[in-house]
Amino acid sequence: MKVYGDEKSGNCYKIKLTLSLLNIDYHWHAIDLMAGETKTDQYLAKNPHGKLPIIELDDGRVLAESNAIIGYLAANSSLIPTDEFEKALMYQWLFFEQYSHEPCIAVARFIQLYQGMPAERLAEYESLHVTGAGVLTLLDNHLVDHRFMIGQQFTLADIALYAYTHVAHEGGFNLASYPNIQQWLANVEQQSGFIGMFD
Amino acid sequence: MKVYGDEKSGNCYKIKLTLSLLNIDYHWHAIDLMAGETKTDQYLAKNPHGKLPIIELDDGRVLAESNAIIGYLAANSSLIPTDEFEKALMYQWLFFEQYSHEPCIAVARFIQLYQGMPAERLAEYESLHVTGAGVLTLLDNHLVDHRFMIGQQFTLADIALYAYTHVAHEGGFNLASYPNIQQWLANVEQQSGFIGMFD
Repeated sequence: MKVYGDEKSGNCYKIKLTLSLLNIDYHWHAIDLMAGETKTDQYLAKNPHGKLPIIELDDGRVLAESNAIIGYLAANSSLIPTDEFEKALMYQWLFFEQYSHEPCIAVARFIQLYQGMPAERLAEYESLHVTGAGVLTLLDNHLVDHRFMIGQQFTLADIALYAYTHVAHEGGFNLASYPNIQQWLANVEQQSGFIGMFD
Repeated sequence: MKVYGDEKSGNCYKIKLTLSLLNIDYHWHAIDLMAGETKTDQYLAKNPHGKLPIIELDDGRVLAESNAIIGYLAANSSLIPTDEFEKALMYQWLFFEQYSHEPCIAVARFIQLYQGMPAERLAEYESLHVTGAGVLTLLDNHLVDHRFMIGQQFTLADIALYAYTHVAHEGGFNLASYPNIQQWLANVEQQSGFIGMFD
């Protein structure tokens, strides 16, 4: 299996972290997002949407969307609850991550870290900080009485939300204001097979 | 089971359509989004995120995020492929819907239909039309050789993408330019148990 990814991308890191936790071998094919390598004809033939990450199976089949990919990789593992309601709660948080969390926490980081705070995006950056504070407060409140997102079981919801939350400071968020999130990040990092974004 | 929803919302309609296709009984609890009914203490106690739709089971457990809800409702039905890769492809399209499709197709509709095109959102509206055309072209190209999103099997990917695509004209998109989408919409509407947004 090949993973096409950019190592600075949290969405790509989700795949790397899941594969490490599951001890699955793969080949990492580095793609430079900022150099336009997701818009080449060669890449678009694999993913017409022109986004990272994708995985390519040995038979050539391609899967896109980070949270769908980790769902595929972790099928029938302990990273996905067997109880249907708990599994649905896990997906609830995966959709929350893509719809509400990533578009502010990751985009603020993109503007600051990748783009170097261009003047024409400063108003958007400030707006993302207002929305992002709401998202982080929601997470912090949820984690008051949850060791992991679903409860006692470490699942894909933790992997997906960890990916951009642990680097939120690179987008200007101060996690010191969110003690439950800090404890939860430490809980995730204690998992057997854990690997850091640049490890 | 109770469904808390606003009937004009495509995300809420996904739940209604899935329940009708599966012939499951439920109680619809109407919530008026524009009247602020998702921000009351009573509603926030059920969903701290303050968003629609949610379902409430008879034992009081609550589930949010439309695509997680339909995943729960359709567990072990023909609306979800049994093959792990096909199931992952279904989720790929569900995440695509929430991350790339809904934020332009549904938001353009919200600005036009709910808000009546306020002057301060016109630039955003025009920008959404550029992005939206790309999303609809991607779908139309995919549907050239697919009866449904995953192939021959009608799945939750069709339900989720149908919800806002079939009312895209209410956000100013002209589906006449997308013949494969038009054929696919008709294929969805031919499913046994199909119900319209306002039926």
